[in-house]
Amino acid sequence: MADIRRAVRESLGDLSEGQLVLVALSGGADSLALAAATAFEAPRAGLRAGAVIIDHGLQEGSDEVAQRAAEQATGLGLDPVIVRRIDVGEQGGPEAAARQARYAAFMSVRKETGAAAILLGHTLDDQAETVLLGLARGSGAESLWGMHTVIGPMRRPMLQIRRDQTHQSCVDQGIEPWNDPHNSDDRYTRVRIRQRVLPMLDEELGGGVALALTRTADQLREDAEALAHFAQEQIGDLVEHAEAGLSLEAEALRANPPALRQRIIRLAVQSEFHVSLTRQQTLEVSRLVTDWHGQGPLHLPGLQVRREGKRIFFTAA
Amino acid sequence: MADIRRAVRESLGDLSEGQLVLVALSGGADSLALAAATAFEAPRAGLRAGAVIIDHGLQEGSDEVAQRAAEQATGLGLDPVIVRRIDVGEQGGPEAAARQARYAAFMSVRKETGAAAILLGHTLDDQAETVLLGLARGSGAESLWGMHTVIGPMRRPMLQIRRDQTHQSCVDQGIEPWNDPHNSDDRYTRVRIRQRVLPMLDEELGGGVALALTRTADQLREDAEALAHFAQEQIGDLVEHAEAGLSLEAEALRANPPALRQRIIRLAVQSEFHVSLTRQQTLEVSRLVTDWHGQGPLHLPGLQVRREGKRIFFTAA
Repeated sequence: MADIRRAVRESLGDLSEGQLVLVALSGGADSLALAAATAFEAPRAGLRAGAVIIDHGLQEGSDEVAQRAAEQATGLGLDPVIVRRIDVGEQGGPEAAARQARYAAFMSVRKETGAAAILLGHTLDDQAETVLLGLARGSGAESLWGMHTVIGPMRRPMLQIRRDQTHQSCVDQGIEPWNDPHNSDDRYTRVRIRQRVLPMLDEELGGGVALALTRTADQLREDAEALAHFAQEQIGDLVEHAEAGLSLEAEALRANPPALRQRIIRLAVQSEFHVSLTRQQTLEVSRLVTDWHGQGPLHLPGLQVRREGKRIFFTAA
Repeated sequence: MADIRRAVRESLGDLSEGQLVLVALSGGADSLALAAATAFEAPRAGLRAGAVIIDHGLQEGSDEVAQRAAEQATGLGLDPVIVRRIDVGEQGGPEAAARQARYAAFMSVRKETGAAAILLGHTLDDQAETVLLGLARGSGAESLWGMHTVIGPMRRPMLQIRRDQTHQSCVDQGIEPWNDPHNSDDRYTRVRIRQRVLPMLDEELGGGVALALTRTADQLREDAEALAHFAQEQIGDLVEHAEAGLSLEAEALRANPPALRQRIIRLAVQSEFHVSLTRQQTLEVSRLVTDWHGQGPLHLPGLQVRREGKRIFFTAA
């Protein structure tokens, strides 16, 4: 309990007197422990604390679960307590669609209430699962970053807290959490990672795997932020806007290490065409710089890339 | 077989007519497949190809295993074929000690023969195991790089080749590999990763985990190389050598993203004191830059770090 309170206190340290923070509450042990710690810490820091509860409407009785969580929040002294029913679409699969609808609801509640921050109950164990999921998908280094501690108004104070600490904290405070049946449905990859993969890794590799994964993710995120910083710094000098697109100077691109060159290419395409190039596509573009022997234009989704003289031209297709 | 030959051909592409390459041969399927492909490709590229066989003297009959591998190498047309018996120490554990003694022997054989390159038989599966081992140890992003394709005179042509391809290639050519009993001794973490962890990850996460791991490692290595490049570039401007140590300018360090700042600190300490700072120690030094409030000197193994005015001083302890 003390660890969780300290984590919340540190997370709120930069807010100003009188500001409102909202805890995103599912009714599970993680977010209930977070809600209890926030209800305790926020007033001591001169802040107001409320809760936002999302009813995804995906399970029978989800409205009752939401109602019960709202009562628990009120019982903890949180105010306002807002329950929001959302419609989950289908785009990108059920988990991604639910996440997107949930975050949209957070944003609208934040606007209505003027909240300075929304606190999410993800723990170190969630983080380790996210990193392993990313690793399994092989979608590159970005997939290993895990979740950010702070991203926009969202904050995750408990990324250093273990899941069993949140459960113990609820027990210690006589709070009864709701157990989401989705959390034990092994059709979800995340559930299999939680229930089978991580325990087996701990057994075979000697323990501490969750901690090792999250520590690695922290460092990779830092590395990635540094490279993003240099890419941003350089792109202003390299880019020239042209009709229906932009161009980059080949020689300056070539002078960069590959990791930065590829980031500059991806950043230019992302900002102009709102297209995320895959690693493979990025490497193809890169070859117009590093392995130029008169090859023809590349046809990528939504754009065409070609070399002309000393510049690489990106134009809408 | 064709894939392996192509990989060897590409790996040898930059060598000059008449140069010698040595295959590091254990007698197992991976290195035998590599030896066969090299015996085929090297003469076609105007190169000479030999083999070096290390007898670690750790298992009963290891001299016979080495002798048999030498005969196979000669049978494949490799020349010279050099068998070297080594003494394995104990430092750093049995695997690390064996590796160190083996690499020392490679270097001395290389010197004697004037070989331009030594080819190692590591496959994509070995690479995936190495990445998972690093991940399990949580020793930071470096541990996820896996093995380098080229490092000094060592080359690993088969890091894109699957282990079952090397076995098939031996079968196709009528070559009978030796099965090292160590490869199925599950007291070794690597063996458990191979036999239990990776197959289980494939089952739970939907296949392709080895490929995903190695692809991620490739990208992380690139990122790390870019950051190392920038750290090298900056350190020359930041460092001032002083009696019994050096100093770095605090303001210039602070202007860098954390990942680069930490690398510059580690690089400075490494180059001057031959000490590798841990992440924790590096972050402590970093706080003299980013969170300066008059704190006292840091006592680290082999050196002392203190801030004086606008500079951070590193002196031998």
